[in-house]
Amino acid sequence: MNGAESLVHTLLANKVDVCFTNPGTSEMHFVAALDHIPGMRSVLVLQEGVATGAADGYFRMKGKPASTLLHLGPGLANGLSNLHNAKKAGSGVVNIIGEHASTHIELDAPLTSDIEGIARPVSHWVHTSKSVETVGMDAAQAVQAAMVAPGQITSLILPSDTAWNEGGVAHGAIDLPEPAPFDESQLEHAVDALSGPETLLLLGGNALTTRNLETAGRIAAKTGCKLLSEWSNARLERGAGRVFIGRVPYPIDIALEVLKPFKRIVLIGARAPIGFFAYPDKPAILTREGAEIITLAAENTDLTEALTALCKATDAISTPPAHVVKAALPERPTGTVNLDNLATLIARAIPEDAIIVDESVTSGRAFSPATKAAPKHTWLNNCGGSIGYGMPAAIGAAIACPDRKVMCLTGDGSAMYTVQSLWTMARENLDITVMIFANRSYQILRGELTNVGVGNPGPRAIDMLSLDRPALDWVQMSRSMGVEATCVSDCDALEAALDDALTSSGPYLIEVML
Amino acid sequence: MNGAESLVHTLLANKVDVCFTNPGTSEMHFVAALDHIPGMRSVLVLQEGVATGAADGYFRMKGKPASTLLHLGPGLANGLSNLHNAKKAGSGVVNIIGEHASTHIELDAPLTSDIEGIARPVSHWVHTSKSVETVGMDAAQAVQAAMVAPGQITSLILPSDTAWNEGGVAHGAIDLPEPAPFDESQLEHAVDALSGPETLLLLGGNALTTRNLETAGRIAAKTGCKLLSEWSNARLERGAGRVFIGRVPYPIDIALEVLKPFKRIVLIGARAPIGFFAYPDKPAILTREGAEIITLAAENTDLTEALTALCKATDAISTPPAHVVKAALPERPTGTVNLDNLATLIARAIPEDAIIVDESVTSGRAFSPATKAAPKHTWLNNCGGSIGYGMPAAIGAAIACPDRKVMCLTGDGSAMYTVQSLWTMARENLDITVMIFANRSYQILRGELTNVGVGNPGPRAIDMLSLDRPALDWVQMSRSMGVEATCVSDCDALEAALDDALTSSGPYLIEVML
Repeated sequence: MNGAESLVHTLLANKVDVCFTNPGTSEMHFVAALDHIPGMRSVLVLQEGVATGAADGYFRMKGKPASTLLHLGPGLANGLSNLHNAKKAGSGVVNIIGEHASTHIELDAPLTSDIEGIARPVSHWVHTSKSVETVGMDAAQAVQAAMVAPGQITSLILPSDTAWNEGGVAHGAIDLPEPAPFDESQLEHAVDALSGPETLLLLGGNALTTRNLETAGRIAAKTGCKLLSEWSNARLERGAGRVFIGRVPYPIDIALEVLKPFKRIVLIGARAPIGFFAYPDKPAILTREGAEIITLAAENTDLTEALTALCKATDAISTPPAHVVKAALPERPTGTVNLDNLATLIARAIPEDAIIVDESVTSGRAFSPATKAAPKHTWLNNCGGSIGYGMPAAIGAAIACPDRKVMCLTGDGSAMYTVQSLWTMARENLDITVMIFANRSYQILRGELTNVGVGNPGPRAIDMLSLDRPALDWVQMSRSMGVEATCVSDCDALEAALDDALTSSGPYLIEVML
Repeated sequence: MNGAESLVHTLLANKVDVCFTNPGTSEMHFVAALDHIPGMRSVLVLQEGVATGAADGYFRMKGKPASTLLHLGPGLANGLSNLHNAKKAGSGVVNIIGEHASTHIELDAPLTSDIEGIARPVSHWVHTSKSVETVGMDAAQAVQAAMVAPGQITSLILPSDTAWNEGGVAHGAIDLPEPAPFDESQLEHAVDALSGPETLLLLGGNALTTRNLETAGRIAAKTGCKLLSEWSNARLERGAGRVFIGRVPYPIDIALEVLKPFKRIVLIGARAPIGFFAYPDKPAILTREGAEIITLAAENTDLTEALTALCKATDAISTPPAHVVKAALPERPTGTVNLDNLATLIARAIPEDAIIVDESVTSGRAFSPATKAAPKHTWLNNCGGSIGYGMPAAIGAAIACPDRKVMCLTGDGSAMYTVQSLWTMARENLDITVMIFANRSYQILRGELTNVGVGNPGPRAIDMLSLDRPALDWVQMSRSMGVEATCVSDCDALEAALDDALTSSGPYLIEVML
């Protein structure tokens, strides 16, 4: 068995059975191994940002890593910004990156680059295999590192001679790490805080599962504490029958207002709220001055255990949870689509068990409250702030959960970043409804100009934030890559389009003119 | 004056007057400064790979750097692979990268990343401004570093408080560095080598200007040495009336055959030929065993002076140059387009003074010989091997030379990498004719599978190298971003389309079915 074959066998033995890839010459032996060893689903993408974003979405829904197969430093580089997003989301990803043969690196060929250097800023674990014999073990360790809670980015660099040489040794299933224990020493402290008024229980990561939210709902009912989640959540279970939890708002002035009442904040899988950006003359720390922050459970710890312990300690085990959502469908809106009725239409359209991948930026500010009482669904946010995460993550989610509908809600500016995603959706016939909110601008930046103190932007500044010259035609764009599409601007048409998309299978794109 | 204003004034004082950008919140003060300080042409792109590739093409044609304005680590990351290409091409680029305010970095916000770490693998010079007072000086030094011969990648990171604070100091024109002197100690040695048989004069970089090629032609006529350029040239002047120079072939077996005769190789601005990739059981060094390599002038030295000195020393100053090309138009082909008649049609279509940006990969193997006697033109290759360079570089070339026609010859797989380029071409109404060679596969990799010893690829392997499911519709794709387009498959139609495109102004895309 050659090194490439030992890699594929090892990944499969460790339950890594999906590979998002755009391979090149240095990865041809892996392509050959994927060809003749059954079990790995290889998904071709047309730009590596799609591969890494898909791996992010896949982990969030499947709880185990996908692999990516990337061509040398530049292939990794193209995937870097979505690895940044995945890292911030706590997603586990196993990157396999081809490298020139060991003897070739010193020759400084055109494609030679410092691959470890490129990988390091977005990776928790970076390793270059030294010989064919260790490839299997290295791959097993990469999977192990990717599964460190909540999930980590691992980058395994394989010189092509370690792939093509004979002498590969496949590794079996490796022990997977347990999450670290939560900080039990803070438990009493947390209980004290919750027994007082003006206390916030702030949840993140794995604390947002259906079961954990139910536990949090019991604690809230018992103690009267408030519940919030972070602005961006890797995965949040929502909808009718579940415990509702709001999010810390993005706009800094509103966030300050919302957090102002809380003198005590207990953190479980969340971090103390800070501003997304710094702004002149505004605070970066969003909690009130002197607020007491109690970190009961950091992101890498067992959040289920922490919540359960807190529930017991507050004597809330048999308290019925607060904030359980009753199913309710908002009234059917009519007229031209605007940001409010758009949110209503989405709330009315969400099918039970849908996965919502949200990169709606400014268009989506009303979505969260509006969809509160929709049928139960899963909501994924962009956690790293680098735009272009949405469509790739939808691909990963759809591959992880082929029996669930995926809705990808994205701004036009964000969607253009990884527009190549549409082709992979078509190729794999993924059950994804993409909604493009076409406001034809980087709308969020118009607000940010004001926030940073630029009061009266001139025409050249406005032009740098506008996408209207020329207007993007998303229907043609989508069809050019094999995804059927329609463009709507009024409520009836949008409702009909959503109905079409969500009752048929395969990808569909709806351009919503705003 | 705030820091952002001091930056813009300094760049303009140092003749950096083009900025390829996709700004974000942390760059809003630069947007404001660009708005009210006249003189900088800001070109908006929809993904940063377009910005950095455009800066590469711009430098090659203009001989001075453009700036890019990138949003934090992820914005830089998106532009990284085309910076890799620019670095390998010896292009000077001044990257301006926004960073969180100094006080915000430690909070590890969603968009926080190790920007210096991301920049370093593709940059010759990396610096983070420490305070508003130094921004002007830092920017001047970035331009200075970018102009170190042949050209360097510089990355200046500006925390947003250094942009918004008052106290900026604009820097005037800074001294630009001279290229290092060539290695005069090798001159006699080179002359000796050239006086013998079986000697190759291998040229690269700035040795490929019209004037320097003429000098090389005189040396060849006088000494009988052979002339070749590297496989990839950042910029090569070609066509009728100029000295013709071939390229070291890409396919390794052919390259070995072509280089086999040469016992002595004199290098001027080129490096000794090596394989693009390593292959099992094939040599990586392409020159014959024991060949003597004489480096008269390394890439960072004064190549014009080296060639002139060599010309004098071989007493060739008044020798008429060899290999001067006589204008000749190949016969008009008919029938279905194939790789041979495609090359002929391109040769017939090239307008005088055209700039050809070549990312044609396998489809373009016949282009170089076929276009030898076309009207004089400039040819740009991808020097770093990371695909997706072509359309962005064409944007940069068109902005550098608004009075010249730009032809971008690109494979379909390569073009998809930075497909967002089309929108910027439309927005800026750039005079670019894009030819997409639609073979609907990563054709080069099919050959590479064989080269690495995978003789009989199965269906899953073939599938990973194919773009035909679904087929990309380039006409719809192009129109969706505002660029008129047509699809052709026979010679008459292609000729007519080229005629249309090259006699009108503005961008136009031709999908050539292969």
